[in-house]
Amino acid sequence: MKALLLIAHGSRRQQSNDEVYVLADKLKNNCAEQYDIVHAGFLELAETLIPDGIRQCVDDGATSIVVLPYFLNSGRHVIEDIPQEVNETKPLYPQVDIRIAPHLGASELMMDLLISSANSTR
Amino acid sequence: MKALLLIAHGSRRQQSNDEVYVLADKLKNNCAEQYDIVHAGFLELAETLIPDGIRQCVDDGATSIVVLPYFLNSGRHVIEDIPQEVNETKPLYPQVDIRIAPHLGASELMMDLLISSANSTR
Repeated sequence: MKALLLIAHGSRRQQSNDEVYVLADKLKNNCAEQYDIVHAGFLELAETLIPDGIRQCVDDGATSIVVLPYFLNSGRHVIEDIPQEVNETKPLYPQVDIRIAPHLGASELMMDLLISSANSTR
Repeated sequence: MKALLLIAHGSRRQQSNDEVYVLADKLKNNCAEQYDIVHAGFLELAETLIPDGIRQCVDDGATSIVVLPYFLNSGRHVIEDIPQEVNETKPLYPQVDIRIAPHLGASELMMDLLISSANSTR
Protein backbone atom coordinates (compact mmCIF):
# COMPACT_ATOMS: atom_id res chain seq x y z
CA MET A 1 0.00 0.00 0.00
CA LYS A 2 1.52 3.30 -1.15
CA ALA A 3 0.89 6.50 0.80
CA LEU A 4 1.38 10.16 -0.01
CA LEU A 5 1.83 12.61 2.87
CA LEU A 6 1.51 16.25 1.79
CA ILE A 7 3.42 18.48 4.23
CA ALA A 8 2.76 22.23 4.34
CA HIS A 9 4.39 24.73 6.66
CA GLY A 10 1.37 25.26 8.90
CA SER A 11 -0.23 28.58 9.74
CA ARG A 12 -1.80 30.29 12.75
CA ARG A 13 -4.62 31.08 10.31
CA GLN A 14 -6.89 28.05 10.30
CA GLN A 15 -8.23 28.87 6.84
CA SER A 16 -4.76 28.36 5.38
CA ASN A 17 -4.46 24.97 7.07
CA ASP A 18 -7.94 23.99 5.87
CA GLU A 19 -6.84 24.80 2.29
CA VAL A 20 -4.11 22.17 2.65
CA TYR A 21 -6.63 19.53 3.74
CA VAL A 22 -8.88 20.46 0.81
CA LEU A 23 -5.89 20.14 -1.51
CA ALA A 24 -5.01 16.74 -0.05
CA ASP A 25 -8.59 15.55 -0.64
CA LYS A 26 -8.41 16.75 -4.23
CA LEU A 27 -5.02 15.06 -4.59
CA LYS A 28 -6.48 11.81 -3.24
CA ASN A 29 -9.09 11.83 -6.00
CA ASN A 30 -6.48 12.61 -8.65
CA CYS A 31 -3.79 10.07 -7.78
CA ALA A 32 -5.92 7.13 -6.63
CA GLU A 33 -4.33 4.86 -9.24
CA GLN A 34 -0.86 5.53 -7.86
CA TYR A 35 -1.40 6.08 -4.13
CA ASP A 36 -3.80 4.13 -1.94
CA ILE A 37 -3.55 6.53 0.99
CA VAL A 38 -3.26 10.33 1.06
CA HIS A 39 -2.91 12.45 4.19
CA ALA A 40 -1.90 16.03 4.92
CA GLY A 41 0.26 17.36 7.71
CA PHE A 42 2.27 20.36 8.83
CA LEU A 43 5.84 21.13 9.79
CA GLU A 44 4.75 23.39 12.64
CA LEU A 45 1.99 25.61 14.06
CA ALA A 46 -0.85 23.25 13.12
CA GLU A 47 -2.11 19.71 13.59
CA THR A 48 -1.37 17.07 12.20
CA LEU A 49 2.41 17.22 12.69
CA ILE A 50 4.79 15.12 10.55
CA PRO A 51 5.30 12.20 13.02
CA ASP A 52 1.52 11.88 13.47
CA GLY A 53 0.95 12.10 9.71
CA ILE A 54 3.41 9.27 9.15
CA ARG A 55 1.71 7.26 11.90
CA GLN A 56 -1.69 7.80 10.22
CA CYS A 57 -0.30 6.43 6.96
CA VAL A 58 1.17 3.40 8.73
CA ASP A 59 -2.06 2.81 10.66
CA ASP A 60 -3.90 2.83 7.33
CA GLY A 61 -1.60 0.05 6.12
CA ALA A 62 1.09 1.93 4.20
CA THR A 63 4.17 -0.09 3.26
CA SER A 64 5.73 2.91 1.53
CA ILE A 65 5.27 6.64 2.18
CA VAL A 66 6.26 9.57 0.01
CA VAL A 67 6.50 12.76 2.06
CA LEU A 68 5.73 15.62 -0.36
CA PRO A 69 6.87 19.08 0.83
CA TYR A 70 4.34 21.74 -0.20
CA PHE A 71 7.07 24.37 -0.29
CA LEU A 72 8.33 26.59 -3.10
CA ASN A 73 11.89 27.33 -2.00
CA SER A 74 14.70 25.10 -0.82
CA GLY A 75 14.98 26.98 2.46
CA ARG A 76 15.88 25.62 5.88
CA HIS A 77 12.47 23.95 6.27
CA VAL A 78 13.00 21.86 3.14
CA ILE A 79 16.74 21.23 3.55
CA GLU A 80 16.89 20.58 7.28
CA ASP A 81 13.61 20.60 9.21
CA ILE A 82 11.45 18.20 7.20
CA PRO A 83 14.27 15.64 6.72
CA GLN A 84 15.02 15.84 10.45
CA GLU A 85 11.38 15.18 11.42
CA VAL A 86 11.16 12.31 8.93
CA ASN A 87 14.50 10.77 9.94
CA GLU A 88 13.57 10.86 13.61
CA THR A 89 10.33 9.02 12.84
CA LYS A 90 11.74 6.37 10.47
CA PRO A 91 13.16 4.05 13.18
CA LEU A 92 9.63 3.61 14.61
CA TYR A 93 8.53 1.90 11.38
CA PRO A 94 11.54 -0.05 10.05
CA GLN A 95 9.28 -2.11 7.78
CA VAL A 96 8.02 1.00 5.93
CA ASP A 97 9.91 2.65 3.05
CA ILE A 98 9.70 6.39 3.82
CA ARG A 99 11.10 8.88 1.29
CA ILE A 100 10.94 12.63 0.77
CA ALA A 101 9.92 14.06 -2.61
CA PRO A 102 11.56 17.18 -4.12
CA HIS A 103 9.92 20.47 -3.10
CA LEU A 104 7.55 21.98 -5.66
CA GLY A 105 9.85 24.77 -6.80
CA ALA A 106 12.17 22.11 -8.24
CA SER A 107 9.52 20.80 -10.64
CA GLU A 108 9.88 21.20 -14.39
CA LEU A 109 6.14 21.90 -14.48
CA MET A 110 6.56 25.09 -12.43
CA MET A 111 7.13 27.17 -15.59
CA ASP A 112 3.79 26.07 -17.06
CA LEU A 113 2.04 26.79 -13.78
CA LEU A 114 3.57 30.28 -13.46
CA ILE A 115 2.70 31.27 -17.02
CA SER A 116 -0.81 29.82 -16.70
CA SER A 117 -1.41 31.78 -13.48
CA ALA A 118 -0.11 34.99 -15.06
CA ASN A 119 -2.36 34.52 -18.08
CA SER A 120 -5.43 33.91 -15.94
CA THR A 121 -5.21 37.43 -14.49
CA ARG A 122 -8.42 39.41 -14.93
CA MET B 1 4.95 46.39 -23.57
CA LYS B 2 3.74 43.71 -21.16
CA ALA B 3 5.63 43.01 -17.95
CA LEU B 4 5.52 40.15 -15.48
CA LEU B 5 6.66 40.81 -11.90
CA LEU B 6 7.21 37.63 -9.89
CA ILE B 7 6.79 38.35 -6.17
CA ALA B 8 8.11 35.92 -3.56
CA HIS B 9 7.96 36.36 0.20
CA GLY B 10 11.65 37.13 0.67
CA SER B 11 14.02 35.35 3.03
CA ARG B 12 16.89 36.20 5.35
CA ARG B 13 18.68 33.37 3.56
CA GLN B 14 20.20 34.88 0.42
CA GLN B 15 20.26 31.54 -1.37
CA SER B 16 16.45 31.41 -1.24
CA ASN B 17 16.20 34.88 -2.73
CA ASP B 18 18.72 33.99 -5.44
CA GLU B 19 16.53 31.00 -6.37
CA VAL B 20 13.71 33.44 -7.12
CA TYR B 21 15.92 35.48 -9.44
CA VAL B 22 17.04 32.29 -11.22
CA LEU B 23 13.39 31.30 -11.59
CA ALA B 24 12.52 34.74 -13.00
CA ASP B 25 15.33 34.40 -15.56
CA LYS B 26 14.01 30.98 -16.58
CA LEU B 27 10.51 32.43 -16.75
CA LYS B 28 11.76 35.24 -18.99
CA ASN B 29 13.06 32.68 -21.47
CA ASN B 30 9.83 30.69 -21.35
CA CYS B 31 7.27 33.46 -21.75
CA ALA B 32 9.10 35.80 -24.13
CA GLU B 33 6.25 35.59 -26.64
CA GLN B 34 3.74 36.85 -24.07
CA TYR B 35 5.77 39.15 -21.82
CA ASP B 36 8.41 41.60 -22.99
CA ILE B 37 9.72 42.31 -19.49
CA VAL B 38 10.18 39.98 -16.51
CA HIS B 39 11.43 41.03 -13.09
CA ALA B 40 11.45 39.48 -9.62
CA GLY B 41 10.78 41.11 -6.28
CA PHE B 42 9.92 40.39 -2.68
CA LEU B 43 7.17 41.27 -0.22
CA GLU B 44 9.65 41.74 2.61
CA LEU B 45 13.09 40.88 4.00
CA ALA B 46 14.90 41.16 0.66
CA GLU B 47 15.58 43.55 -2.20
CA THR B 48 13.90 44.32 -4.66
CA LEU B 49 10.67 45.28 -2.84
CA ILE B 50 7.33 45.48 -4.70
CA PRO B 51 7.26 49.27 -5.33
CA ASP B 52 10.80 49.13 -6.74
CA GLY B 53 9.94 46.08 -8.85
CA ILE B 54 6.99 47.93 -10.36
CA ARG B 55 9.21 50.95 -10.99
CA GLN B 56 11.77 48.74 -12.78
CA CYS B 57 9.02 47.43 -15.06
CA VAL B 58 7.79 50.96 -15.81
CA ASP B 59 11.37 52.18 -16.40
CA ASP B 60 11.78 49.35 -18.92
CA GLY B 61 8.74 50.63 -20.79
CA ALA B 62 5.90 48.51 -19.40
CA THR B 63 2.38 49.65 -20.28
CA SER B 64 0.85 46.73 -18.40
CA ILE B 65 2.19 44.75 -15.44
CA VAL B 66 1.01 41.42 -14.07
CA VAL B 67 2.14 40.96 -10.47
CA LEU B 68 2.44 37.19 -9.95
CA PRO B 69 2.48 36.07 -6.29
CA TYR B 70 4.88 33.14 -5.81
CA PHE B 71 2.83 31.87 -2.87
CA LEU B 72 1.04 28.58 -2.29
CA ASN B 73 -1.64 29.57 0.20
CA SER B 74 -4.14 32.39 0.26
CA GLY B 75 -2.83 33.70 3.57
CA ARG B 76 -2.60 37.28 4.76
CA HIS B 77 0.34 38.01 2.45
CA VAL B 78 -1.71 37.13 -0.63
CA ILE B 79 -5.06 38.50 0.54
CA GLU B 80 -3.91 41.74 2.15
CA ASP B 81 -0.21 42.57 1.99
CA ILE B 82 0.56 42.21 -1.72
CA PRO B 83 -2.64 44.01 -2.84
CA GLN B 84 -1.87 46.80 -0.36
CA GLU B 85 1.67 47.28 -1.69
CA VAL B 86 0.43 47.23 -5.29
CA ASN B 87 -2.51 49.56 -4.63
CA GLU B 88 -0.26 52.08 -2.89
CA THR B 89 2.05 52.09 -5.92
CA LYS B 90 -0.60 52.28 -8.66
CA PRO B 91 -1.29 56.06 -8.38
CA LEU B 92 2.36 56.74 -9.24
CA TYR B 93 1.84 55.24 -12.70
CA PRO B 94 -1.75 56.03 -13.75
CA GLN B 95 -0.91 55.25 -17.39
CA VAL B 96 0.10 51.66 -16.56
CA ASP B 97 -2.41 48.79 -16.19
CA ILE B 98 -1.26 46.93 -13.06
CA ARG B 99 -3.03 43.71 -12.05
CA ILE B 100 -2.41 40.90 -9.59
CA ALA B 101 -2.50 37.26 -10.77
CA PRO B 102 -3.98 34.44 -8.67
CA HIS B 103 -1.52 32.80 -6.26
CA LEU B 104 -0.06 29.48 -7.43
CA GLY B 105 -2.07 27.27 -5.10
CA ALA B 106 -5.20 28.33 -7.00
CA SER B 107 -3.94 26.89 -10.29
CA GLU B 108 -5.62 23.90 -11.90
CA LEU B 109 -2.13 22.71 -12.85
CA MET B 110 -1.15 22.26 -9.19
CA MET B 111 -2.49 18.68 -9.15
CA ASP B 112 -0.22 17.68 -12.04
CA LEU B 113 2.74 19.35 -10.38
CA LEU B 114 2.12 17.63 -7.00
CA ILE B 115 1.74 14.17 -8.56
CA SER B 116 4.77 14.71 -10.79
CA SER B 117 6.90 15.75 -7.80
CA ALA B 118 5.71 12.75 -5.76
CA ASN B 119 6.53 10.37 -8.61
CA SER B 120 10.02 11.83 -9.06
CA THR B 121 11.02 10.69 -5.56
CA ARG B 122 14.11 8.50 -5.55
